[in-house]
Amino acid sequence: MAIIRVEMGARPQEEREEIIARLTDVMVDFGSPRENTHVILYEVSYDVWAKGGVPYSKRAKQASHGDAS
Amino acid sequence: MAIIRVEMGARPQEEREEIIARLTDVMVDFGSPRENTHVILYEVSYDVWAKGGVPYSKRAKQASHGDAS
Amino acid sequence: MAIIRVEMGARPQEEREEIIARLTDVMVDFGSPRENTHVILYEVSYDVWAKGGVPYSKRAKQASHGDAS
Amino acid sequence: MAIIRVEMGARPQEEREEIIARLTDVMVDFGSPRENTHVILYEVSYDVWAKGGVPYSKRAKQASHGDAS
Amino acid sequence: MAIIRVEMGARPQEEREEIIARLTDVMVDFGSPRENTHVILYEVSYDVWAKGGVPYSKRAKQASHGDAS
Amino acid sequence: MAIIRVEMGARPQEEREEIIARLTDVMVDFGSPRENTHVILYEVSYDVWAKGGVPYSKRAKQASHGDAS
Repeated sequence: MAIIRVEMGARPQEEREEIIARLTDVMVDFGSPRENTHVILYEVSYDVWAKGGVPYSKRAKQASHGDAS
Repeated sequence: MAIIRVEMGARPQEEREEIIARLTDVMVDFGSPRENTHVILYEVSYDVWAKGGVPYSKRAKQASHGDAS
Repeated sequence: MAIIRVEMGARPQEEREEIIARLTDVMVDFGSPRENTHVILYEVSYDVWAKGGVPYSKRAKQASHGDAS
Repeated sequence: MAIIRVEMGARPQEEREEIIARLTDVMVDFGSPRENTHVILYEVSYDVWAKGGVPYSKRAKQASHGDAS
Repeated sequence: MAIIRVEMGARPQEEREEIIARLTDVMVDFGSPRENTHVILYEVSYDVWAKGGVPYSKRAKQASHGDAS
Repeated sequence: MAIIRVEMGARPQEEREEIIARLTDVMVDFGSPRENTHVILYEVSYDVWAKGGVPYSKRAKQASHGDAS
């Protein structure tokens, strides 16, 4: 059995389903019963998800300004 | 002390409160101080929650089609 | 369906099983299919679990010294 | 490296960014590489977050009624 | 970017590494930068992980007794 | 109120306590009641924590071999 949680950016339902299917396949290949392999996708806003002390939304703005300067 | 997190489908506030109260009672019965027993309910969409590689929203559609065929 | 996670202090297996059974019953009572109700107990050391900026292990020592003084 | 997750009430973006920056600084001060220090803020509704078996939204109402009586 | 957490049974390091590599590949295929795709495996004891109100360790015993009867 | 969870490498108790105290101070500065600010530190082995598809334990070996070559 396995429970997979993914924190990621928002994606269309089609992509969600492909991600779910492929992540499940990985755990099934390593012995987790398919019907006992669970996935939950947490789509997190880049306003509240940060690296290096700066939210990704702000990092993106900084990067684009950096490119423009 | 105890922190209980529940991932579940969406429910009306009245049910949420009953679930919270009863889950808390369980931990209090096993020695967790009531005022130090915390519950957070995460209501997860069935579009991003999957079992067996398929989101529950899609499983439900498949099940209903299965009944119709 | 429901996935319940509990952060709590360490407990003997007998108590773990009773807690698991009763938490499951709560969610089943609110419509979660029994065989699709999952519980994971995370037993957390009081050296790394804190309230008010102080680990519970230290709070306990402070409380006992407080009683003795 | 460090991944910090905070469950908290909703806050304006400006406060979010200050919280992110300062939490990151704490871990960096203890050796976590800045660019490998991640923060995710989970803003949880007080309708589904409870202490002592009662959601915070209801505790607040009870407290304000308590003051009035 | 993506953070993948998996709750699963204990596995040897070699399998852990293959699981990590393949889960990462899935998210990279869907646009998550490789060096910003993180995986944490939580190996959970079957004494504290339950389905249907019964820990997996006990379900396994019950199943084996069931076979013997 | 706030619940802070940190996934990090193992650290001595003294450092844990300083991290706990300082993380708590940050949330208290932003209005979280001190006695309702909780911290849990999850010390994760670098064998099961990965970036870029490779566990940190292996990345460290690769880096040191890289330096030697």
